Amino acid sequence: MRKAVIAGIGSTAFGRHQDRSIQSLAIDAGCAALVESGVERSRIGALYLGNFTAGPLCGQEVLAGITADELGLGPIPATKVEGACASGGIAFRHAVMAVRAGLCDAAIALGVEKMAHASGADVTAALNCAMDNRSDGPSGLTFPGFYGLAWRKYAAAGRANRDDVSAVVIKNKAAGLKNPLAQMGADLDLETIAASAYIADPIQLYDCCPVSDGASAVVVTTPELARDAVAEPLDILATVQTSGAPRIAGHADMCSLVATVAASSQALEEAGLGVDDLSLAELHDCFSIAEILNSEDLGLVPRGEGAAWAAEGRTGSGGDRPINPSGGLLAKGHPVGATGLGQIYEATIQLRGTHSNQVRGARFALTHNLGGAGVACTVSILGRPDA
Amino acid sequence: MRKAVIAGIGSTAFGRHQDRSIQSLAIDAGCAALVESGVERSRIGALYLGNFTAGPLCGQEVLAGITADELGLGPIPATKVEGACASGGIAFRHAVMAVRAGLCDAAIALGVEKMAHASGADVTAALNCAMDNRSDGPSGLTFPGFYGLAWRKYAAAGRANRDDVSAVVIKNKAAGLKNPLAQMGADLDLETIAASAYIADPIQLYDCCPVSDGASAVVVTTPELARDAVAEPLDILATVQTSGAPRIAGHADMCSLVATVAASSQALEEAGLGVDDLSLAELHDCFSIAEILNSEDLGLVPRGEGAAWAAEGRTGSGGDRPINPSGGLLAKGHPVGATGLGQIYEATIQLRGTHSNQVRGARFALTHNLGGAGVACTVSILGRPDA
Repeated sequence: MRKAVIAGIGSTAFGRHQDRSIQSLAIDAGCAALVESGVERSRIGALYLGNFTAGPLCGQEVLAGITADELGLGPIPATKVEGACASGGIAFRHAVMAVRAGLCDAAIALGVEKMAHASGADVTAALNCAMDNRSDGPSGLTFPGFYGLAWRKYAAAGRANRDDVSAVVIKNKAAGLKNPLAQMGADLDLETIAASAYIADPIQLYDCCPVSDGASAVVVTTPELARDAVAEPLDILATVQTSGAPRIAGHADMCSLVATVAASSQALEEAGLGVDDLSLAELHDCFSIAEILNSEDLGLVPRGEGAAWAAEGRTGSGGDRPINPSGGLLAKGHPVGATGLGQIYEATIQLRGTHSNQVRGARFALTHNLGGAGVACTVSILGRPDA
Repeated sequence: MRKAVIAGIGSTAFGRHQDRSIQSLAIDAGCAALVESGVERSRIGALYLGNFTAGPLCGQEVLAGITADELGLGPIPATKVEGACASGGIAFRHAVMAVRAGLCDAAIALGVEKMAHASGADVTAALNCAMDNRSDGPSGLTFPGFYGLAWRKYAAAGRANRDDVSAVVIKNKAAGLKNPLAQMGADLDLETIAASAYIADPIQLYDCCPVSDGASAVVVTTPELARDAVAEPLDILATVQTSGAPRIAGHADMCSLVATVAASSQALEEAGLGVDDLSLAELHDCFSIAEILNSEDLGLVPRGEGAAWAAEGRTGSGGDRPINPSGGLLAKGHPVGATGLGQIYEATIQLRGTHSNQVRGARFALTHNLGGAGVACTVSILGRPDA
C-alpha cells in the first residue's frame, strides 16, 4: 500500500443555507479543496460523496455524479456512499483506499447534507431510516430516545449526574463560539442547561446537536502529487471502517458500541500509536452523553470515567485529553453526510497549527464518525509530517 | 493487483414481494451466494450493497450494516453505494476492487430494491431523484420522457421504425418466459405492442421495464479461497465504473452516453478482448430503445445499426451478437439496486453453461449497468477459467 496524504480541504459554514441548493454546497466545498490541494483536476481519479437524507428531503440522488460533472473531473468513477451519520467518514476512507491501493493518484472525498428547510417531522423520519425499522422504529424510538436510554443506564451505574454531562455541553458550545464555521456556539451555564426543555428524558434541549446544512471536502493524494499544495500535506496514518448491530437488542451494553471499540483499536494499531500519543480527538457528539460514551469506547478515557473527565475539564482544548475543540456536532452542527469530513477538516487545521481554538503543539489527531445506533463507524488518525 | 474470481451467486426472483421486508430479500440473496461460494463467513472482509430508493419508499437506510449484521459477518466495513440504477454494478466493482487491492481476501456484493408496494406517483418521484433536479426534473421530465426524446432523435435520422424497436421487446419478453427468476415474460407480436398504451410518445407500455422488487448477491474472492465453491469459479477480467452528465443539456447527443462509451472501451482494454470475443452481453434495457442505443455505445453493433441488428434477429440468443438472453430489464425486471448484480448472476450461469436460455459455447460475457440519464455506469467482463 502506498502512502496517502491530505493535500487540500474545503468547507462551507455549517448552519442554515436556505437559499442554496444541495448541489451548490457540495461544489463550493469541493472547489475549495481542489484549489488548496494544487492537484490538477485531470489527476483526480475517483470521487466519493457521503450523504444520507438527500433522497427524501431534497428529492435528489446521484450527487456523486452531479458533483464530478460540475467540478469538471471528466467521466471518473463517482460514488455516493451511505452509512447514516458515518457517511462522510466512509467517503474519506474510500478516497484514501483508492490512492493507497494505486487505483488512482488522487481522489476527492465530499460530504454534504441539506436538512434545515424540512419540517421537524420530515427530518425525524429521515433520520429514523438509520434504525432497523423492522424493530426499533415501529416501537416509537428516535435517536434522542436511544441516547436517553443509554444515559439512564450510565447514570444508574452512578457514573454521571446532570451537571457532569452539562460540562460537555458548556465546553463544546464555548468552543463553537470560536469557530467561524460553527452553527450554534453559546456561552452557557449549568442552570440554563438544566432548565431547558426535555427532549427524551434525561436528554434536554442543549444536549442535542442542531439540524444543519453544509458540506466539507478533502483531496487525498500521494506525497509526490501534493507538492504544489497551499499548506504542508498531512500524513494519513490510519483510516478504519467497521459495522455493528443496527438495533438496541443487538447491543450487549447500550453504553458501549462494538463498532467504535473495534475501529479505535484497529486504527491505533494501523497508526502504530497509543491513545497518549493523540493530541486531540474530534468525535461524534450527536448528543452530550454520546461524547462521554464514545470517549470511553475509543479508549481516550478509562471506562466509566468519561463524565468525570469532562466535569474536571480534562477534555478541554487546554486539558490533557482535548476532545472536540471545534465545538463538535453539538455546536459546530451536524449536516449528517458532511460531518465526518468536517472532522477531518478541523483536525487538519489543528495539525497545521492555525485553528481558532488551537491545541498547543498538536501532532496527531483522531477523528471518529458514527452512524445510527452503532451500525457504522469510521476512525481515522492524521499526523504532522514531522511528527 | 491480485486476480479476483466469482465464487458464488444468489438471487431472489424479480417481481412483487409484497409480504417480504427489504432486509429479508437482501439476506436471502446473500445467504445463497455465501453458501454457494464455500467461503467461510469469517473470511468475508467487506460488504457492498447497492440500493437506490429504500429511504423514500421503505423508510430504511443503513441496509449494508443491517445485512452484514444479519449474515453474521462481524464488524466488517459495510457500505451502501448509490449511483441510481447503476448502484448494483457499483457494489460489484467495489467488492472486486477490495479483493484485487488486497484489502481483504473475500467480499460480498449485494443489490436490493423494494418498490412494487409504493404508488406510481411515489415510484416516479423516487426514480426522478436520479435526475439533476435543478434543471430536468422541474421541467416535468421523467425517464420515459428522456428515452422518448432519444428515440425521436434516433428515428428522425431514419434509423428505426416502431417495428424495429418492437423486435427488442419481442426478443426479451420471450426470453423472460424461459427465465424462472423473471417478472414479466410474454409471448408478444408486433400488433399487440403497437396497440399498447402510450407512456411518453413514442414509448409505449411494452417498451418499459416493470417496477420490481428483488435482490441479488455475488461473493468475490481469490482463486485460492474459492476452492470449495459449489461451481467452478469464474474469472473477473474487467470491472470499470464511469460517470457522465446528469442532465439532458450535458449530452452532446442524447443517443450516445459518454459514460457507457468510456466504460466499454476501458473494460475491453482491461480484459484484453475485442467485442467479437464476447459471447453475450447483459445490458441495461430499461426501455426497448435503450437496448438499441446501449448496444451501439458499447460497440457491440455498428453506430446507427442497433435497430437493424435487432430487427434482423442478430441479437437473439442464437444470433451472432446475443444480447439479454435473461430477458433483460424489460422482462426479468428492474429492482433498481439489484439489477447490476442480477446481470452478473445471469452472466455467471451462462458461463457455467447451465442457463435456461443458454448461449452455446459461452466463454466471455459483458454486463452493462447504467444510472440516470447517463450519470453513472459500470461495465464488467467475466470469463470461463478455461477460456
